This record gives sequence, C-alpha cells and structure tokens, in this order.
Amino acid sequence: MTRSASPPRKKIPVAVLGATGAVGQTFVRLLANHPWFELAELAASERSAGKSYGDAARWLEGDRPDARILGRAVIACDPAAVKSPIVFSALDSSAAGDAEVAFAKAGKLVLSNAKNHRMDPDVPLVIPEINGDHLGLLEEQRRKRGWKGGIVTNANCSATVAAMALAPLHQAFGLKQVFLTTMQALSGAGYPGVPSLDIIGNVIPYIADEEPKLERELGKLLGALRGNEIAEDDFVVSSHTNRVPVEHGHTICATIGFKKRVTPEQAIKVLRSWKGYGGAQNLPSAPAEPLIVRDEPDRPQPRRDVNEGGGMSVTVGRVRRDPILDIRLVAMGHNTVRGAAGGSVMNAELLVSSGAVNLA
Amino acid sequence: MTRSASPPRKKIPVAVLGATGAVGQTFVRLLANHPWFELAELAASERSAGKSYGDAARWLEGDRPDARILGRAVIACDPAAVKSPIVFSALDSSAAGDAEVAFAKAGKLVLSNAKNHRMDPDVPLVIPEINGDHLGLLEEQRRKRGWKGGIVTNANCSATVAAMALAPLHQAFGLKQVFLTTMQALSGAGYPGVPSLDIIGNVIPYIADEEPKLERELGKLLGALRGNEIAEDDFVVSSHTNRVPVEHGHTICATIGFKKRVTPEQAIKVLRSWKGYGGAQNLPSAPAEPLIVRDEPDRPQPRRDVNEGGGMSVTVGRVRRDPILDIRLVAMGHNTVRGAAGGSVMNAELLVSSGAVNLA
Amino acid sequence: MTRSASPPRKKIPVAVLGATGAVGQTFVRLLANHPWFELAELAASERSAGKSYGDAARWLEGDRPDARILGRAVIACDPAAVKSPIVFSALDSSAAGDAEVAFAKAGKLVLSNAKNHRMDPDVPLVIPEINGDHLGLLEEQRRKRGWKGGIVTNANCSATVAAMALAPLHQAFGLKQVFLTTMQALSGAGYPGVPSLDIIGNVIPYIADEEPKLERELGKLLGALRGNEIAEDDFVVSSHTNRVPVEHGHTICATIGFKKRVTPEQAIKVLRSWKGYGGAQNLPSAPAEPLIVRDEPDRPQPRRDVNEGGGMSVTVGRVRRDPILDIRLVAMGHNTVRGAAGGSVMNAELLVSSGAVNLA
Amino acid sequence: MTRSASPPRKKIPVAVLGATGAVGQTFVRLLANHPWFELAELAASERSAGKSYGDAARWLEGDRPDARILGRAVIACDPAAVKSPIVFSALDSSAAGDAEVAFAKAGKLVLSNAKNHRMDPDVPLVIPEINGDHLGLLEEQRRKRGWKGGIVTNANCSATVAAMALAPLHQAFGLKQVFLTTMQALSGAGYPGVPSLDIIGNVIPYIADEEPKLERELGKLLGALRGNEIAEDDFVVSSHTNRVPVEHGHTICATIGFKKRVTPEQAIKVLRSWKGYGGAQNLPSAPAEPLIVRDEPDRPQPRRDVNEGGGMSVTVGRVRRDPILDIRLVAMGHNTVRGAAGGSVMNAELLVSSGAVNLA
Repeated sequence: MTRSASPPRKKIPVAVLGATGAVGQTFVRLLANHPWFELAELAASERSAGKSYGDAARWLEGDRPDARILGRAVIACDPAAVKSPIVFSALDSSAAGDAEVAFAKAGKLVLSNAKNHRMDPDVPLVIPEINGDHLGLLEEQRRKRGWKGGIVTNANCSATVAAMALAPLHQAFGLKQVFLTTMQALSGAGYPGVPSLDIIGNVIPYIADEEPKLERELGKLLGALRGNEIAEDDFVVSSHTNRVPVEHGHTICATIGFKKRVTPEQAIKVLRSWKGYGGAQNLPSAPAEPLIVRDEPDRPQPRRDVNEGGGMSVTVGRVRRDPILDIRLVAMGHNTVRGAAGGSVMNAELLVSSGAVNLA
Repeated sequence: MTRSASPPRKKIPVAVLGATGAVGQTFVRLLANHPWFELAELAASERSAGKSYGDAARWLEGDRPDARILGRAVIACDPAAVKSPIVFSALDSSAAGDAEVAFAKAGKLVLSNAKNHRMDPDVPLVIPEINGDHLGLLEEQRRKRGWKGGIVTNANCSATVAAMALAPLHQAFGLKQVFLTTMQALSGAGYPGVPSLDIIGNVIPYIADEEPKLERELGKLLGALRGNEIAEDDFVVSSHTNRVPVEHGHTICATIGFKKRVTPEQAIKVLRSWKGYGGAQNLPSAPAEPLIVRDEPDRPQPRRDVNEGGGMSVTVGRVRRDPILDIRLVAMGHNTVRGAAGGSVMNAELLVSSGAVNLA
Repeated sequence: MTRSASPPRKKIPVAVLGATGAVGQTFVRLLANHPWFELAELAASERSAGKSYGDAARWLEGDRPDARILGRAVIACDPAAVKSPIVFSALDSSAAGDAEVAFAKAGKLVLSNAKNHRMDPDVPLVIPEINGDHLGLLEEQRRKRGWKGGIVTNANCSATVAAMALAPLHQAFGLKQVFLTTMQALSGAGYPGVPSLDIIGNVIPYIADEEPKLERELGKLLGALRGNEIAEDDFVVSSHTNRVPVEHGHTICATIGFKKRVTPEQAIKVLRSWKGYGGAQNLPSAPAEPLIVRDEPDRPQPRRDVNEGGGMSVTVGRVRRDPILDIRLVAMGHNTVRGAAGGSVMNAELLVSSGAVNLA
Repeated sequence: MTRSASPPRKKIPVAVLGATGAVGQTFVRLLANHPWFELAELAASERSAGKSYGDAARWLEGDRPDARILGRAVIACDPAAVKSPIVFSALDSSAAGDAEVAFAKAGKLVLSNAKNHRMDPDVPLVIPEINGDHLGLLEEQRRKRGWKGGIVTNANCSATVAAMALAPLHQAFGLKQVFLTTMQALSGAGYPGVPSLDIIGNVIPYIADEEPKLERELGKLLGALRGNEIAEDDFVVSSHTNRVPVEHGHTICATIGFKKRVTPEQAIKVLRSWKGYGGAQNLPSAPAEPLIVRDEPDRPQPRRDVNEGGGMSVTVGRVRRDPILDIRLVAMGHNTVRGAAGGSVMNAELLVSSGAVNLA
C-alpha cells in the first residue's frame, strides 16, 4: 500500500446503509458537506425504500439535513441497487453480518460500524491515529475471500474512547493490567433505545454484551500488524459498563498498570505529545488534537467536552498516581461521532488517502 | 461493656445539631417517631436560633414533619443550651470539629456524621453490623481525654456502601486489592450542593476530598479492635469517585482481589448468608436484610433499590468473575440514610442497647 | 342504590387484566394488601399466560410484590378463565374496548382505566369525591345492554388532576372558561413509553390524543346525574399538554373564569374546606385530605408532593388573581395512582360500599 | 436618526461588564469573533479585577474562548477604567441600576441585559425585528437626562420568546387577550442558579418576579413609538411561569384572542412570511429566519431546536384552533442567546448600523 496525502481528484460517491437510524443519521450529518465524498445514496429497510428520506427518518437531533437530502428517495439496502463504490454501514448487528459480506462481494468497500466482523482475523479494526497501518489486512482479506471489495470496521464506542487514551501509553510503556469503569451515554443504545422510565434519575449498571466487546477489541486495536495478521500483546482488561442519563459522550475511569513503573508526569507528557499514525494526521475528519489533556480536577465532562474537535477529539483528565498500580485517569469521547460514524468516515478517508481504493 | 438487647425503660431525649440542613432534616425524619428516642431539641446556627423549625428549615423532601416538630423553636448549637444526653451531629465539617469536642466534654454522647474525628485513633468509626464492637474504643477515649461524654462517628457515605459489600467478603476470604468506581447521588453534596447547570445531562468525574476518605476509612472500618486500638489489615484500596444526576443512592463498581482464589459462587454464598455483628441485629433501625443480593443482570439501580429496608439495606448485584483479580460486583445504598443519618441513629441504638450509655 | 359505609363481610376476590404492564403493576401494588379485596387472579396476554408473574412482568418500581404474588401463574385475559366478580382493567386501549365488554357480559364488574368506554353515555366516569353518585348510571347500563356485570371507568390522568382542583370551585361558583397547560410525567406514557433520547433535558409540547380527552372528560366528570344520563354544564376547556422529564406526577397550570366574579381568597376557602361526595369519605383508599392547599409560592412540585395521601391527594398551590379571568392556580397529582390504578380501586370500594355489587 | 446598512469602517472596541458570570460568558462567546466589534475589555467585580479572565471565570459551557481572551486581565467595572464607547452589561440587577447610569453619564452606550431600566419611559426596550424603531427614544433620553451616552435594554428572556411569536400576529390582527404558560430552562437562572436537588426529575411552578416582567414588558415591546414615548396597546397578558430541567431554551404555550376572528391558517401565513423591521434584516447577528414555523405535531422542542439560527431564531409550532379564543401555539427560543446576550449584541449592531452611534 503506498501512501499519499493528496485528496481524490473528484468527489467519490458514497452510500449509507441503514441511513434512517440513529447512527445512520450521524453518518448523513457528517457526510452532507464532506470535501472528498459525495453523499449519493441513502439505503434503508424495505419499509423505508421509496419514501423520501425526510419522511422515512425521524430526525433525532437539531441540525436537520438540508432540503436536498431530506427530499431524496431512500433506496433498498441491496448491492444491486447501490452504485457508490464506498458504503458506510450503520446497519444493526442483526442485519449487518450478511449484508456487509454481500456488499463486499459485490465490489464495495464497506466501512462498518457493526460488531459482526470486527474480530474476524482478516478484517481491519481501525482507529486511524492508533493503528491506521492495520488497513494492510485488506489485501489479505480480498485475497483469501476472493473479493473485489472489502470490509473495514471501526471499534465499539467505549473501546474507541478507551483506546485513544491507552494507545499512547501502551506505545510508550507497555500496558500490563487495565481496569475500566464506563459511564455511557444514551445515544450509544440507538433509538428508541433506553426507555426514559429506566434511566431518568437513575444509573443502570449493565449494558448487554458491552463488557466482552470492550475487553476484547482493545487487544486487537493495540496489536501489531505482523504479515497478514494482528499480533495481540499480552495485557489484560477488566471492565464495568454502566448507562447514565447523558445524551452523548462516554466517560471512562481507567486504572492502569504498566510493564514498568510509570509516573503520572511521564504519562501526561506522553499523552500531550502524542500525534498518532502519520497517515492519519491531515485527513478531513482528523481533529487538530486527537487527545486533549485537561488540568482542571473535574474534567473531562461529557456535556461540556463532548464536541471538542467536532466530536473527534478524546479528552483526558485526572491523570494521577494509583495506590495499587501505576496511574489513574478519566477519558471521555463522543460515542456516535468518534466512536461510531465519525470513526468510519475517517477510516474511509484514510483508505482513500492511502491509495488503497481503486475506483475505476 | 456489657450487652443487652433490651430497649431503654423510657424514651431517651435526643438533640440534632445542624437540624436545618439536608442531613439534619434526614435525622429529624428518622427520629420523629423513634421507639427509643424522643426528638427533644433542634439546634442550629445563630441565624436560625429562635425561629420555629418550619421557618428556619427549607424542607427538601416530600414527607414533611408534623406540626408539632415544625412549630418547635430552634435552639443555639451550644452545650449549655442542650439538655439531651445524646446529640446527633449533622454539622458541616467546618463547624463540627470543635463543636463536637465541646459537647463531648460537656458530657454528651455525640453521634457524628462529620468527617473531622473519624480517623482519630480513639474515636469509634462504626457501622453496627460490621464493627459494632469498635464501640469499645469509647472507654479509652473517655479515659484518655477525661471526658464524661464521647464521640462516635459513622463513615463517609460511599465508604459505608462499599464496606457493607466488602465486610462479609473480607471476613471470609481476606481482601488484598480493591478497585472502586463510584457514581454518587446529588444528595451526598448537601443543599444547595451541586448546581443544576453542572450536572443535568452530565457526569462530573470528581468529588473534592472523596477518594482519600473512601480509601482510608475502609481500613479502619474493616480493622479489628485490639485492646485500645484498631489494627488495620494490609489490603489496599484505589478509587475513582464521580457525581451523577441521581437524587439518592451511591452506586459502586468494585473489582476485588483476595488473599486466596475466590469464585463468584463462593462470594455470593457468603454475601447472602451474612448477618453481621450479633449486637446489631435487633435494633430498631436494623433492616431485615442488611445486604440484599440480586440475581438480575441489571441491578442494583439507585432509583429502584435505594429504599430497600427503609434505606438501611445495601443491595449488591452482578457478582461475577474478574479476568485480572477474583470477582467484580456492584453495590448500592442510600447515602443519606444508611450512609449518614440512619447510620448514626443505628449507632446510637447500639450504644444504648449495649449498656454503654449511662443516663443518670 | 342504597348506601352503606360497612365493609364487605369477607374479602372479595378480584382480578387484574393486563397485570404485567405499568398500570397493571400499580394495581398489583395497591391491591396486594387491600383490606376489602383479595388479589386472586393476574391476567395478561397469551404470551405471558402460564408464566409466573415474576417472570412475566419486568417490575418497574422499587417496591416489589412479595414472593406469594411473584410466584403466582398468570392466566389468560378471558372471561371464561377469570372467576373473580370484580376485575380491574389495565388493558391497553387497543385491547380494552372489546375485552371489557366481554367481561361485563359475562357478569363481571369491570373497573376500567382505559379510554374506550369513558364517554359512552351509560358508562359512569367516576372520581369518587367528585361524582360518586354517577355510579347510578350502572343500573341503566345493565338494563339497556342486558348485562349482569357492568363497566365503570376512571378518568384520563390529567383530567383527574384537573377535576380534583376544579370540582369544588365549579360546585361553589360555576365554571365558565378554563385554560389548562399540563406538564405530564413519563409514567403516564406507560412502558417502554417515551424514549430517553426524546425527553432527557427536553420538553415535548405534545401528547397524542391527550388534549381532546382532557377537554371532553371534564364536562362529563363535573356534570350532574339527571335520571339516566349525565347533564353536562356549559363551561369550555382549552388545553396545552406537554411531556416533561419527571417520573410521576402531572402538574397543571390552570387559569379560570367563573360565571360570577371570584377572588383568590374565596377560592382558597372553598378548596380548603372541600370534602367531596359523602359516600367517598371513609373508603380504604380515601386520603385524609383529597385536596391539599399549600401556601408556599413554589408548590406543588411533582417530585416532592406526588406521594401525599399515598398518591391519592391532589395538591394545589399558587391560587392567585388573574388579570384577564378570575383566578390562576397550579394543581398536581399522582398520575398512576390517583389518575389511574388508585382511582379505579377507589371506584370499586365505592361500588362495594354503596351496595351496588351483588356478590352471590 | 438616519439609517444605513453599512458596517463601521473599522471595528469598534467594546467592553463586557460582569464578564465572568453566566450571561457575561455568553457575551464573550458571541463577541469573540464579531465582524464589527472588537472585544477589548472584560470588566467584573473588585474580586476578579486584576486576575486573568481564565482564572476569574469558571467557564460553564464547552466552547472555551481562545488563549488570547483567557489570558486577558479583568478590569474593574468602573467608567473611569473602561475606554470602549460601547459596553454590554451582564450585571446582576442588584448592581446594574446604578452602574449603568454611571456608564451612560460617562458617555458610554450601554446595552443592558438587566431588568432595572427596561420600563423607564425614555429607555428603549428593543428586539430589533419587532421594534427597532424604538431606538428613537435614545435622543429623548439623552436630551432629558443630559447624557452623552445612553441605555438601551433587551427584554426579559421569556418576554423575548413570546414577543417574537406575538409581534407578527399583533401587527396583522391586533392582540386582545394572551394566556402564556412557560417552561423555562435552567440557564435562565444564572450560575450557580437552581440547585440540582430542587429540579432533577421535578418541575418548579414558580420563578420569582418573572410573571410581572413577562406580562408588563410585552406591552412596551409591542407598543408604538409616538413622538418621545411608547404608546402601549390595550391587550392583556396573563401568565404562569415554570422552571423545568432543561439546559437552554424557554418553551411557551400561548393561547391567543384577537380583536377579530383569526384562523390558524391565517396565523401561520403571517408567521411564515414575517420579516420584521427592515433595519434589522442584514445585521451580523440576524438569523436567516427570525421565526421558524414547524409543521410536525411535536415541535418546537428546546433540546432539538434551541440552536436554530445560531440561537437567534425562535421556533413556533402547533398553531391550532382554540375552543375559547382564536388560536393556540407553542414558541421556543434560546434564553441566553436571543433572550439575553445575543439580543443585546444585535441591538448594538442596529444602533451602529442606524448611525445613532457617534464614535469620535
């Protein structure tokens, strides 16, 4: 794979699969005026196909798309109906597994937000600044599966926030043990998602299937590309995942032990100076600072910090000594932007920028 | 100290210091119809003294005291003005340190909710079911300080909830390492406390001075009375403390390593069968079950479980294996009842029941 | 219909239809230890029938029923399967219309919380203190329809709260124009009800079909039984209905014009002294004060006042002069107790107490 | 006063008085990159003077000012210390009365957000699109008081939102009776403002002194400049004001009677086509649409619509027939932008644009 910072000569048409749901809407918002991509097709379930997007989608946030997008006809979520070479999948995991394979077979580059293929050994699980080079797996995937297209996934939303804080530290010092407790936003559960009677003035100390995803994906995200596979390092992650009455932004308390003694000052220095994978730095969705380190004792806070870097920065604070392991810190990031749609869009930018996409 | 399960022959008059504040109001509610105590005196700052209680206190919850209490004149918070032999201190820590000493010198038994004297070596820091025998320190305190009265403290609210879940396990298996992440209710900050603009739809990952209290008090609470002092065991506690938009109920995610391997099944069995210190079991404020273990994957929840046992039960759930240490669990309890006023009232009951109080 | 204050000689077996839903659960809670009724049967949809109640119902509030109730088998919602002479219907309006008729035909007295039959001319729409005498319609209903059983309905939850504040004033002064703006709790929408992403930190200025119900039912509730029908008076009601992020308790701002000039002082005097329909006063569910009038400028408040009188009292405050009409006031009451299940239970008590129920 | 659409030839230096508070912070945010104004001076209380702005202000929202502003020294709120010819007053009403007079005497044009001088007969109370011509009062004010400067005020936040919806209708049809019920956001109470324990999961049906302001200011806002005074029309306003757990955005339910019959269709047509006062249309803070009329049954909603037009648009919905008067509608707007700081900034733009400001 050769690398080039240059944008595509002309805008590349893209489709969003599952465009009417919560994550689909975030894709639409992020792609509506994208400098490299032309939001050409909005695909959704049979029930929505044929309707205008404005009629099919109950728009969940304040910043509505313009009339041009609201008026566009929704098409079926079918490889035969979709012409764009790049498709973003906001499909629910119940549908995503087979559908994404069908699109990849049909020659599409599928940028998926679903969990289904994340842990497949030949599918890149990518956060550009952390492991952009894992896109190299795509060649193996195409070769092995005989596909012209391919599947690239982003990580689980809480795994993404945690990985952004952990990656610089792992690269510098080597993680050994990580204890995570999350306080996750409502938008992470989609729409209609969490009933208000369950969460108003309450905390739910459980999110189905979240802890295994969080614990498992971090190993692959922070692993190294060795030939045709990802070699995972031997650190261990333990987690508690909780739902809290916050709209957007997952907050994670992390307690971290390294392979050698690390002080808070050393950790802060590494976090502040981290730029991440070079190929990711000038992409349209790349924030000025992928990691923001705050000094105030009471930050990050989801409502106040979630939109830093357009929702693509992760904010870290309270980096301090731990009485058992090495350090403790708190990380917070936007779960539907950095941790979902925005992450996939940035993955697509990296793919295009790296020349991996051959768009005849 | 001799022990007796018998109630006092007649109701003992008691006073509440700081009766107009949030914790003071909870004391008033719990003492208004107490079978052993007569709520005889309501003391507060100079500013309130002389007013009726109804005028001086902005009542924060729905269950208002009756006219008899609302109409009573507030007295000054001065040992000379207070006649009751037992005083409950809901004073703020800025005032509690000196005031409680003055009352103890004047022969009063001070049941304190303030942090000031909790870690004094000769002051009992007591949760009846856990370490009711620590009241034995009171003799040493009186002897050493030459007091006729004395000070008995309850623990910090989050330390109380954590201790209730940890004590049975420590007694059975021996704690080695404990990682705690709390999600604490607004009422823990008193009134006016947390501004709504800071916490609505938000999480604040910081509570001033809370983590040291939580980490330190657990050692004393779970220590053993050896002669005239508390011998602390050698486990280590690490914590993150967070404020969440919940009215009452601190939720704590705990990850626990023991001196030997312990399975979730072993832990659940111990938690379910725990009754705690014998002298605490038939006190008026003792709940039928001090610890409730729930099987559902999504419990405990503060809004739904906080009033179990009249706010005196702590609910535990999600007891499960940990990939790094031994087990993980979630504990939740009422921070202003079990973790504050209710805890002090039960301490007073234990004192009376144990015969430690000589009421001439 | 003869009247008697005497309780039934032995407990009357009752059934709850739709026992697993949100309102059904409130019925179960209120009937679990009722002095006159024996909660004998729990009926629900085919999907739940045969399961234990504990397995079929996801219990929504903290105060779980005891093991005896949780372990009982749910039966089908079928007149042939239900033996109790009194059935409480918590059925959804999509099912209630036909089902309630079937039960009434089969000889059951149906106490319904559904909207379907409320405005049928021969169906009593009853709030005991306001129009308990409307139960007299039941004779006409049975005669006309040839039923041995019958249907008695309670009112819409917001209509109930409004009616409790308006009835004494209407009786004393005669309503002419009423402008209502409601701020309604989440529990009014049932479960799962309002998605949290729609309501957290938000207000929704619309509740489907609520304004017509509120405006229409008040006329029947405050009308007079004349022979075999309800004669409605000629006042007019205009409303705005809003959903707010509150768990329980509908708050209603009312601006009221009467047939003659009325001062706030006159209105307060009437509201404070109102006792309502005599037959309702000593029923088990009757609160000591059906209407509580508060003097503080900032009451009633749902979170603080909703449980007054066990959720059966309505609290009124801010009674003040209006610059256009006569007076303004704020009323607040518990929407799932007084405004739903509790209202139906009290209707049943009134039926039994009045001797209208012939229970062979 | 002559009118000119032309911007100033060079940026005009401006000061913010009370820059560290909640409204002051909003002024700073809106002025930080203003095309016509240079945010030159930040003034606050003696306690803050001399500190850097970043140290003196606890920044309440996510979008922090840049380092240039955070690093600037706060100056005293004293006419002798302030050089800018235009000052924006975010002072609390306890300080604003005298301070604003002092600044006006010293030759400053004071754009005030405080209530103190709003109803002074010679002080313009201005919302540019509604009554921009009321700035004409300034000449009378200067003449009468012998000032070189002057005071121009914006309206109370809820009065502003109501006025935006009512003005077009009043201009077209003539208001007769208006019933308003507000549901107001927390930011309207400033910081620390409403304690979270008062408002979480709750509604407070009272805001001190708000109803008189709302009822009174509408008369002046919708009045006509006749010579040297404002002639108020004879409609009457009645209101209920409530606090709800919403961050930003006041929602108002309005029921409206006109001097002649008006249908919802007529009202919608007028609202949709309204552009307002010509001089206001091309100002930098003027939104593309001052009024947005939504067709969905459940809009406007504060969390979703509050930032329309950068917080300067007011959104109206649910325009429908009323059974007593003519129409009902719901209006919602941003209370700290359109209803406070943004309104004042736009007033200053109108002053500058109109040539009323002589800046030697």
